[in-house]
Amino acid sequence: MSGRFFASDNSATVHPAIMEALNEANRGHAIAYGEDEWTLAANRVFKDLFGRRAEVFFVYNGTGANVIGMQAALTSYHGVICSDVSHINCDECGATENYIGSKLLPVTTSDGCIAPDQILPFLSARGNVHHSQPKIVSLTQATEVGTVYDSDRVREIARICHKNDMYLHMDGARISNAAVSLGLDLGEITGRLGVDMLSLGGTKNGVMFGEAIVVWRPELAEKLTYIRKQGMQLASKMRFISAQFATLFGTDLWRENALHANELARELAARLRSIPAVEIVYPVEANGVFARLPRPALSRIQEEIFFYEWDAEADIVRLMLSFDSTMEDVEALVAAVRKHLS
Amino acid sequence: MSGRFFASDNSATVHPAIMEALNEANRGHAIAYGEDEWTLAANRVFKDLFGRRAEVFFVYNGTGANVIGMQAALTSYHGVICSDVSHINCDECGATENYIGSKLLPVTTSDGCIAPDQILPFLSARGNVHHSQPKIVSLTQATEVGTVYDSDRVREIARICHKNDMYLHMDGARISNAAVSLGLDLGEITGRLGVDMLSLGGTKNGVMFGEAIVVWRPELAEKLTYIRKQGMQLASKMRFISAQFATLFGTDLWRENALHANELARELAARLRSIPAVEIVYPVEANGVFARLPRPALSRIQEEIFFYEWDAEADIVRLMLSFDSTMEDVEALVAAVRKHLS
Amino acid sequence: MSGRFFASDNSATVHPAIMEALNEANRGHAIAYGEDEWTLAANRVFKDLFGRRAEVFFVYNGTGANVIGMQAALTSYHGVICSDVSHINCDECGATENYIGSKLLPVTTSDGCIAPDQILPFLSARGNVHHSQPKIVSLTQATEVGTVYDSDRVREIARICHKNDMYLHMDGARISNAAVSLGLDLGEITGRLGVDMLSLGGTKNGVMFGEAIVVWRPELAEKLTYIRKQGMQLASKMRFISAQFATLFGTDLWRENALHANELARELAARLRSIPAVEIVYPVEANGVFARLPRPALSRIQEEIFFYEWDAEADIVRLMLSFDSTMEDVEALVAAVRKHLS
Amino acid sequence: MSGRFFASDNSATVHPAIMEALNEANRGHAIAYGEDEWTLAANRVFKDLFGRRAEVFFVYNGTGANVIGMQAALTSYHGVICSDVSHINCDECGATENYIGSKLLPVTTSDGCIAPDQILPFLSARGNVHHSQPKIVSLTQATEVGTVYDSDRVREIARICHKNDMYLHMDGARISNAAVSLGLDLGEITGRLGVDMLSLGGTKNGVMFGEAIVVWRPELAEKLTYIRKQGMQLASKMRFISAQFATLFGTDLWRENALHANELARELAARLRSIPAVEIVYPVEANGVFARLPRPALSRIQEEIFFYEWDAEADIVRLMLSFDSTMEDVEALVAAVRKHLS
Repeated sequence: MSGRFFASDNSATVHPAIMEALNEANRGHAIAYGEDEWTLAANRVFKDLFGRRAEVFFVYNGTGANVIGMQAALTSYHGVICSDVSHINCDECGATENYIGSKLLPVTTSDGCIAPDQILPFLSARGNVHHSQPKIVSLTQATEVGTVYDSDRVREIARICHKNDMYLHMDGARISNAAVSLGLDLGEITGRLGVDMLSLGGTKNGVMFGEAIVVWRPELAEKLTYIRKQGMQLASKMRFISAQFATLFGTDLWRENALHANELARELAARLRSIPAVEIVYPVEANGVFARLPRPALSRIQEEIFFYEWDAEADIVRLMLSFDSTMEDVEALVAAVRKHLS
Repeated sequence: MSGRFFASDNSATVHPAIMEALNEANRGHAIAYGEDEWTLAANRVFKDLFGRRAEVFFVYNGTGANVIGMQAALTSYHGVICSDVSHINCDECGATENYIGSKLLPVTTSDGCIAPDQILPFLSARGNVHHSQPKIVSLTQATEVGTVYDSDRVREIARICHKNDMYLHMDGARISNAAVSLGLDLGEITGRLGVDMLSLGGTKNGVMFGEAIVVWRPELAEKLTYIRKQGMQLASKMRFISAQFATLFGTDLWRENALHANELARELAARLRSIPAVEIVYPVEANGVFARLPRPALSRIQEEIFFYEWDAEADIVRLMLSFDSTMEDVEALVAAVRKHLS
Repeated sequence: MSGRFFASDNSATVHPAIMEALNEANRGHAIAYGEDEWTLAANRVFKDLFGRRAEVFFVYNGTGANVIGMQAALTSYHGVICSDVSHINCDECGATENYIGSKLLPVTTSDGCIAPDQILPFLSARGNVHHSQPKIVSLTQATEVGTVYDSDRVREIARICHKNDMYLHMDGARISNAAVSLGLDLGEITGRLGVDMLSLGGTKNGVMFGEAIVVWRPELAEKLTYIRKQGMQLASKMRFISAQFATLFGTDLWRENALHANELARELAARLRSIPAVEIVYPVEANGVFARLPRPALSRIQEEIFFYEWDAEADIVRLMLSFDSTMEDVEALVAAVRKHLS
Repeated sequence: MSGRFFASDNSATVHPAIMEALNEANRGHAIAYGEDEWTLAANRVFKDLFGRRAEVFFVYNGTGANVIGMQAALTSYHGVICSDVSHINCDECGATENYIGSKLLPVTTSDGCIAPDQILPFLSARGNVHHSQPKIVSLTQATEVGTVYDSDRVREIARICHKNDMYLHMDGARISNAAVSLGLDLGEITGRLGVDMLSLGGTKNGVMFGEAIVVWRPELAEKLTYIRKQGMQLASKMRFISAQFATLFGTDLWRENALHANELARELAARLRSIPAVEIVYPVEANGVFARLPRPALSRIQEEIFFYEWDAEADIVRLMLSFDSTMEDVEALVAAVRKHLS
């Protein structure tokens, strides 16, 4: 397999500006574990983006950011309200349950977004020793099905959380795609709305490796320093994560990359919608297109241009666009769909 | 702080050949999570090095390699016999206990090396439900104090392990330094001697990020595929770890880098030994020199050229040499020592 | 509050024959932790009941039996398929997730009983490292809503489990009520149908404290000896659990107690059904009656005779009958319902 | 085996007054899980004994009391300073590490008692993310080798703990024996000295089953309600634990039982000391006698009257006295020793 395909935004390359940052960071010795100038610089970038109360902790990957971040807020008998299709519930091989020891409390959603009134029933468990005690609501922004929470909904969920002594966690593996979709800055759709901790994605937006946990609560930051180390997520040569993030988020690169991917997703969806046998099953608000294709054709297209099936029984596929996807890629896929459906 | 110092081999840079490999791996899309050509190539390199039975699992860092690797061999009531100064016991913030849930059973050593007869007393716990059941012996090679196990000792410990239904784990964060010290190949000092699983270090020998777990037991390999993902150690853009390891271990780079660091360590030790007030406290068999320095001078030297204190109460410092350390660095340190001790 | 009520079968007293057994076991010293003559005798009783392959492990309570038993079969990335209303999912404060570290995979049921074809979709996760791997199907018999699995269904689910390298776990907190409901012996509805491990209840059927884990798999039994101790469930003065169980299950006491409670449940249901405003919402197959009552009356009845609300929003109450409940209790409750509904 | 022996104080019977309390508690239905009149009464007894700030949580056994109690005070990266021979370190099959996930930090003691200055070196790990952070000091009172901490030492250790944001935990499986040894009340040797949480033993002093966790810190009490349930330690028919403890500690029974056992231990030690070949290896301050006996005789005596070897290699045996041991038992043992040593 060569060239580009639609399997995932983490199939993409590393952006040239990120590669350059890595090369530049490779001079002289640096104190390990984050006490280096690159990490210091990255911290300043994050304060600018997310506000003075925000503290950043670089980790290795998205599962690490979710697990380590939420662990700081949870004790053994706590539960996490999340969507049924959330990455923490479906795609982390039970990491939350095993490494944190907390129960996930999934709610059924039609579009990957939790509604505020879905949280309320869980509150009746408060104070009952037989039940897990809800302590976190976790939203994925953009969601796993390519939709985006609007700011009012996030603000309302934050309000419910804080009123009930809960934290609002945001899995932002694709937060940049959500921000450009909403036309807002990263701080405006997170801390400003009441998000308490954020898994900030880079790998799906042009970075080689590394994600960041951003927290707006000092009591969580204090625990995170230890939990990150214990949780196998403290990079010794941390400068090479910091330098990437300072480049991605210290310039407009995050925005340009995400904008490009989102636009191509919209283009792809528009073209697919014009093909009668194809159904777009979720609103295309970020960089993913979820489409139902007739089965025999589906498999033949997949052999030509790789992508994953999202729901094999329902013949729904997931088509992900990246910063390095091109209009030619989109057209080639559309052509393949047309060919096999005709 | 600038230039180079003696704090740790993970303060060093990334070797230029590794940077080049990273740049070369950055073309086209690749299936995530290891189903890419670079990982395939790296797997072949590891089969050549470690034999056909060996399976390799790339992870992010050394703590990850130790925890995830040992987890595959342990159930809740198992214990791990290790040295009192071992990294898993002292420097991973209790990760083994928290994430695996297993008890560490440390033995006191004079030089970081466990003696075979220190294992035997733990065997009397076998079958007694009140006691943790020893299941792994973990050796660090080279040890945390810069010494190296000879092959006979490793073979003898492996024999005891296998006779008693235990696994032999090797923390090889500095296994390359041990191999060149012994004048042997990596396979000859691990799987060939009966090691069942190895944390194979790269970061301390010129790599940017990533370590590898090598296992010689199919029952461990089967579990590792899941545990690595769950354990936050499965890199999505894995090609960028694989490409580094294929370069480091598919050529003589690992050997050259380690040889250089070891030789400088011996040179440093030789020069320090000639200074009457300095005592070298452990045999210098790898790339670390542990020296006792008189206190007021110690702190002043440290301000000039950075290194860590190993045992602050005993005035013992740790001086680590890297692939990118130079004879000039050594001479500068020796000069500083002489200056402040005169 | 005094007298008897309908809150739970664990509100009941200890059966006089059990109290007598406790008194009789109180002579002389006995080796702790199960190496005593009473435990030996109880083991023989269990071999008679459950077959020669069955091994019994006494523990303290039902949550302990479920957690410790399942832990023997699970490793970190395993999942447990269970019903949405199962005790392990709803009423153990997340013990499975926290102490075992495994994910629960609940399925929605209309009557507390899992259907065989609800298991199949989970099997598509097999081999995918991103998903928890299903390893146990857990059935509650009798269910939390007072229904009973028939033998064909249990046998079919066992077949699916074993074909797919999974274990069948049965939470039998009320297994005696299920057995008499089916008119079968305890062995006939467990090990004989393919159940691999059973949490055998005593506390809800006349015992003071203690439950038993019965396993039909030697590999589970071997692990259980250690896990029980580690899991805080190994009683030092074990003879006092063993003596109770030898009495309950070595005679027809378990059957008589359960039969009595089941019969009173049927009587209560029959009388309530004759009241127009009352709806019995689940088949009454064991010792519990689940009824929907009009709200203002519901609360007034509850003040007179205590019971729990099962679903407060839906005005459904749970009425549990015990071995020491009487026909007078039933009639008093029915009279109270009639009074407040008229 | 019949009659009485010296294996353990949990080989003993249940005291007749306790059996009577169990029989008396067996009337009518009672709300499960502790909302019953017996538990209410027991709570009052504990407030009298331990002060108004003290909160009591009944659990099933000593391991449960230690694990559940300490869990309330620990988060994942915390460590527990304890003695090398402590029950939590040696005799709970790694429960602290597995169920809490915390590291034990054992210190070597000559007589089972931790000295205040052994705690200080651990404090240098504070703030270093690579090391477990000490959060609890756990003392066993009376110790596992039959010695007793004097009040000054406990007070001094409490002072160090509180000055350094740590909790003082006391494993009081034999706290009654310590209290009568010191001639003090239970409150005077625990909360009054600064103990923050206590595992209060009953099983080794005449109770059938059950232990109590006593805490003097509201933040621990709040967590304990949930952790006890999740930790498989919440008894449904709790009245039967409460009734025992109200009897044992609401009267002088705890004192009489412990006094009797301690006195017999002193008598046994005195008689054994008069036999030249026997060496008493620890001060006899509670109800255990640790003696070195010549090997061939040791085994022959053991066949006649059962007891455990404490250190098989050093020929040291542990002889435990119980509330139901008699002077005749002591004389029979001494006679057997004399016989086999002559």
